[in-house]
Amino acid sequence: MTHFADRLCAAVEQKGSCVVVGLDPRPEMLPPEFRPGPDDSAEVIAERIRLFHRHVIETVAPHAVAVKPQIAFFEVFGPAGLSAYLDAISFARARGLLVIGDIKRSDISSTAEAYAQAHLSPDGADAVTVNPYLGSDGLKPFIAKAAENGKGVFVLVKTSNTSAAELQDLLVDGEPVYVRVGKLVRRLGAERVGERGYSLAGAVVGATQKESARVLRETMPEAFFLVPGFGAQGGGAEDCAPCFNRDGLGAVVNSSRGILYAYQKDEQHAADRWREACECAVVKMKESLEDVRNKCRAARDRG
Amino acid sequence: MTHFADRLCAAVEQKGSCVVVGLDPRPEMLPPEFRPGPDDSAEVIAERIRLFHRHVIETVAPHAVAVKPQIAFFEVFGPAGLSAYLDAISFARARGLLVIGDIKRSDISSTAEAYAQAHLSPDGADAVTVNPYLGSDGLKPFIAKAAENGKGVFVLVKTSNTSAAELQDLLVDGEPVYVRVGKLVRRLGAERVGERGYSLAGAVVGATQKESARVLRETMPEAFFLVPGFGAQGGGAEDCAPCFNRDGLGAVVNSSRGILYAYQKDEQHAADRWREACECAVVKMKESLEDVRNKCRAARDRG
Repeated sequence: MTHFADRLCAAVEQKGSCVVVGLDPRPEMLPPEFRPGPDDSAEVIAERIRLFHRHVIETVAPHAVAVKPQIAFFEVFGPAGLSAYLDAISFARARGLLVIGDIKRSDISSTAEAYAQAHLSPDGADAVTVNPYLGSDGLKPFIAKAAENGKGVFVLVKTSNTSAAELQDLLVDGEPVYVRVGKLVRRLGAERVGERGYSLAGAVVGATQKESARVLRETMPEAFFLVPGFGAQGGGAEDCAPCFNRDGLGAVVNSSRGILYAYQKDEQHAADRWREACECAVVKMKESLEDVRNKCRAARDRG
Repeated sequence: MTHFADRLCAAVEQKGSCVVVGLDPRPEMLPPEFRPGPDDSAEVIAERIRLFHRHVIETVAPHAVAVKPQIAFFEVFGPAGLSAYLDAISFARARGLLVIGDIKRSDISSTAEAYAQAHLSPDGADAVTVNPYLGSDGLKPFIAKAAENGKGVFVLVKTSNTSAAELQDLLVDGEPVYVRVGKLVRRLGAERVGERGYSLAGAVVGATQKESARVLRETMPEAFFLVPGFGAQGGGAEDCAPCFNRDGLGAVVNSSRGILYAYQKDEQHAADRWREACECAVVKMKESLEDVRNKCRAARDRG
C-alpha cells in the first residue's frame, strides 16, 4: 500500500498536471443531452448525472490528476444521488484518476470515526476534505483511517470565500487563526510523511489571498495544498504560485464549473460538442499551471 | 407555516420535556433481536437499523421533544443507510416529534445552498446542525432555506469535546473565538425571531463547561441551545442549568447512547426488555431536566 502523498506526487509527475476537476453536478447547467426535465424524479436526475460524469471522467482522465466530487450536489438527490457519487469515485479510480471527496465533514471521536469509515474505506475516495472547528479530536480519526488505508485528508485551513476572514483571520497573539490551524495540521501530520516528504495530512488553501498562501506554505512545508477558487472563483494560475514548493510539488488546483460547463462560455464549441469544450478547458488550465510549476523549479535551480 | 422556534417552544411546553434523543445507530450495540451478523450486507444492516429506530421513536415519542439522527452513522451504510436516515425523519415527524438532523455540514454559496436544499426541504428534518468555520457565507444559505421552510439551524459554537479549546477557546482581543461565533450567530439570526422571542438560528453549546454556557447565554439570548454531552459524555442535568433562560426555555438537551442502549447498563431489564430500559432512561432524564427548568422559572418568579 503506497502512501497517499507519494501516490499524488507520482501522479502529478507522470501526467505533468496538478489539475483537479471538481464534479459539481448542477442539473440546470448540464449539456442539453443530459439535462433533466422539470418533472423528473430524483432517481432520473441522479442517473443523468451519473452518465454525464462518466463522460467527463473519460474526457479529463489524460489531463487531470484527480477529480473532486462535491457531495452536497449529490445529497440533493437522496440515496440515488449518493449512488451517483459512489459511481463517480469507482469509475474515476478505474481510469487512473485520484479522487478527493469534497465532504467537509466534522465531528468527534466515534462519530468522526464513522465518517472516516464511510468515506475513506478501501473502495472509497483517495482523500477527503474535513473541517477543523472541533480541534484535533475531530481530525485524528480521519488521519488514522487515512493512514490505515493509504488515503489522505485535506483540512480546511484558509478558504477562498469573502467571509472566511470573520473567523479564520481573527488575530490570536498577533497570529491569524488560520496559521494556528495550519500548525495544528502540521503537528498532526508530522508522523505521517511519505517518501517524497509530504504528509497524508494536507490543507485546503484558497488561491485568492497570495499573502496567506505564502505564509501557510512556510508554516506547513510537508502539507499538500488543495487549492480551490481557480477560474470561476476569480483566481488564475499566477495566483497559485505561492502554494507550490520549490520542487514544483505541494499543491493541486481545482476548477469545477470552468471545466464541466466550459461549453457554456466557449463560442467555438456548440452545446453538442461539450466534450471538446471540456477538454480544451482542462488542457488550457493544465498548461498555465505547468508554466507556474516550471518557474518554481527554475527558481530553485537558479538557487 | 409556523416559525421553527415557536414550534419548539410549544412542543417543550406541551410535552413538559426538553429531551432530545440522539439516534446513533451502532450495529454492535443494537439489542440482540436487531443486531446484524458479521457477514450481513450494508442493506441488511440498514434495514435492521431502520426497524430499531421505529421502535425507539414510538417508545420515546411521549417523553421527548425531538430526535436527533446523527447522519455519520447512517453514511457508513451508503445509500441504504441514507434511506434509513430519511425513514427515521419521516417516521418521527409523523409521531409528533421534531427532528434535528445532526449533519454538521459546512460549505459556501451555491454548495451550502445545495446542502440546505438536501436537508431542510419541506419533507426533511425540522432543523440541522452546521459548522461556522467558513463564516457567514457558510451560514446564510442554511438560515435562508430554514426561513423559507419553517425550519431551524443550530450552529456549532462551543462543543463539548476536550480539544474544542484548541480553536474555539483562542482569545481574540481578550474574547474567546466561541463568543465571536456566538455574536455572529446572534447577528445572522436577529431578523428571524419568532413570536416567543427565539430565533430560528440556534447554537450547539456543550454542557460540560458551565462558565462558557453562562457567557453564551448572555451573548445570544434569542438563540435556542442544542446541548449535547448529557449522560455518556459526562454532563448531568444540573450542568445544563446555565443553558436555560429564566423562562425555562432556550435549551434542549440531547442524550444518545444513554437512552438508545440503556438496556446495556440496566440490571432491571434484560436485553429482551430493551424498550422498557429505553423508556425508563428517557423519563428519568426528562424529570431531572424538568427540575432544572422549574428552578429557572422559580428564580425568575422570586425576582
